[in-house]
Amino acid sequence: MVKAQRAAHSRKMTRPRAAFSELLAQRWRAADSLLCVGLDPDPQRFIPSLRGRQRAIEEFCCAVADATAPYVCAFKPQIAHFAAHRAEEQLEALLAHLRARHPSVPVILDAKRGDIGSTAEHYAREAFERYGADAVTLSPFMGYDSIEPFLAYAGRGAFLLCRTSNPGGNDLQMLDVGGERLFERIARLASGPWNRSGQLGLVVGATYPRELAQVRALAPQVPLLVPGIGAQGGDIAATLNAGRDAAGLGLVINSSRAILYAGSGEDFAAAAGEAARQTRDDINAHRRAPQ
Amino acid sequence: MVKAQRAAHSRKMTRPRAAFSELLAQRWRAADSLLCVGLDPDPQRFIPSLRGRQRAIEEFCCAVADATAPYVCAFKPQIAHFAAHRAEEQLEALLAHLRARHPSVPVILDAKRGDIGSTAEHYAREAFERYGADAVTLSPFMGYDSIEPFLAYAGRGAFLLCRTSNPGGNDLQMLDVGGERLFERIARLASGPWNRSGQLGLVVGATYPRELAQVRALAPQVPLLVPGIGAQGGDIAATLNAGRDAAGLGLVINSSRAILYAGSGEDFAAAAGEAARQTRDDINAHRRAPQ
Repeated sequence: MVKAQRAAHSRKMTRPRAAFSELLAQRWRAADSLLCVGLDPDPQRFIPSLRGRQRAIEEFCCAVADATAPYVCAFKPQIAHFAAHRAEEQLEALLAHLRARHPSVPVILDAKRGDIGSTAEHYAREAFERYGADAVTLSPFMGYDSIEPFLAYAGRGAFLLCRTSNPGGNDLQMLDVGGERLFERIARLASGPWNRSGQLGLVVGATYPRELAQVRALAPQVPLLVPGIGAQGGDIAATLNAGRDAAGLGLVINSSRAILYAGSGEDFAAAAGEAARQTRDDINAHRRAPQ
Repeated sequence: MVKAQRAAHSRKMTRPRAAFSELLAQRWRAADSLLCVGLDPDPQRFIPSLRGRQRAIEEFCCAVADATAPYVCAFKPQIAHFAAHRAEEQLEALLAHLRARHPSVPVILDAKRGDIGSTAEHYAREAFERYGADAVTLSPFMGYDSIEPFLAYAGRGAFLLCRTSNPGGNDLQMLDVGGERLFERIARLASGPWNRSGQLGLVVGATYPRELAQVRALAPQVPLLVPGIGAQGGDIAATLNAGRDAAGLGLVINSSRAILYAGSGEDFAAAAGEAARQTRDDINAHRRAPQ
């Protein structure tokens, strides 16, 4: 552990990292991709030869990341999939691997944290110092002072939950809060008063393209992290039409399961790479089509 | 790690645990206490002799827990304080210690999780299987299906954020959602339609006694976890008047820093115990006073 800490420290010292917003803007163009691969490892779906191994989760994620990297604008490891399996050290190793091997690909730690300021400081330290993520997902429910400790890390990004892709997303996010819905209020806050340093983005599910368009209208310049294509059924063309910004960019379109488990044999990583390439190309075909 | 897993497994097998709601109801009466001690370890505040030790976080928390146990209705470890220090194994050991030494005291893991169903299953596994908590704190922002996987663990409890004690709690929770505020809607949902199995509670800050009373009126029977007394400045008498249920119970009044760091010398655990006894007695004095 101490060794890993020192290695992380020396990495930080020797190679300063660009701001998340710059990394992302560069990567969108360099990889010609709006696709984010969500790293949600599920050991039950691993191939048998991997399943018994001590660091199977790390090995699976690194293999998929290496195969999909050419086609992605970002990686998004989902922390619960590691925590449920006591695999925090494997998550640390994965992040170290991503930074070393794919330094131009920003990493969004999907953690959906949200707590009072003094506790949020600890969560920010977890995301940015321990794991070295470039950005994190957060819940806005506890308000601005629960977000602020993350913004104190200059250059790191934070995507706030806004309109989520699950059925229960309707329960609170669609409530009328006085002439607008709760998710619209969050979009306005994240685009304006809460975003003084330009570090914020929003999470908006692909399953609701109409609301995605409303969020884009309210927040013309913030990056939108869009889960819900692939296994969750969101439509790529509708997502692009609703969510791209004036430059045809601005989207981080996430696919997890449809890419990770594209293959079920020994060639699972190659199959994931092929699925990522195909999804990136599908996105680009719609991106270039007239609206 | 494997050894700890086996030990946890065998504990689960040999001593079935009562439901959280029963444990809490019994403990309120047996300890004559509404006080919850929040275990938010901060190594910078540890005494020098502890600070250098490998498992300082675990040792600090176990010492404080042992000294305060006679005076509490619950313990509430806050997970970010462990995650920021790569101390998940120490959190596992702490939970194992609490279950072994203080089996009648329910443990609420303060994690404020909230994600889509398939991911929430992993967070539920983390809280209830890995750590063996009796209850967990959750964010309701993503709606009922983000809560459901936790309720699938029969007998375990879930406290939903409702009206939080931080300044930013106003930003969204106080919005009018059509004749009521967002936090009131959450209180109604958690008291009624979302609470079919009686596993839910609510988190309501002590810093807003008026809203605490409104929540109690809307949710007469659910336990209320009330942070914000002590370091955050909430008032004990106002909290009791606003939040106790018809039986004079129903509250889990949390204090963290004011108890954990009551002493700064070698006798820190005894000082924490004394602070807990005093706080429990203060609460009881007001509890028995006529309203």
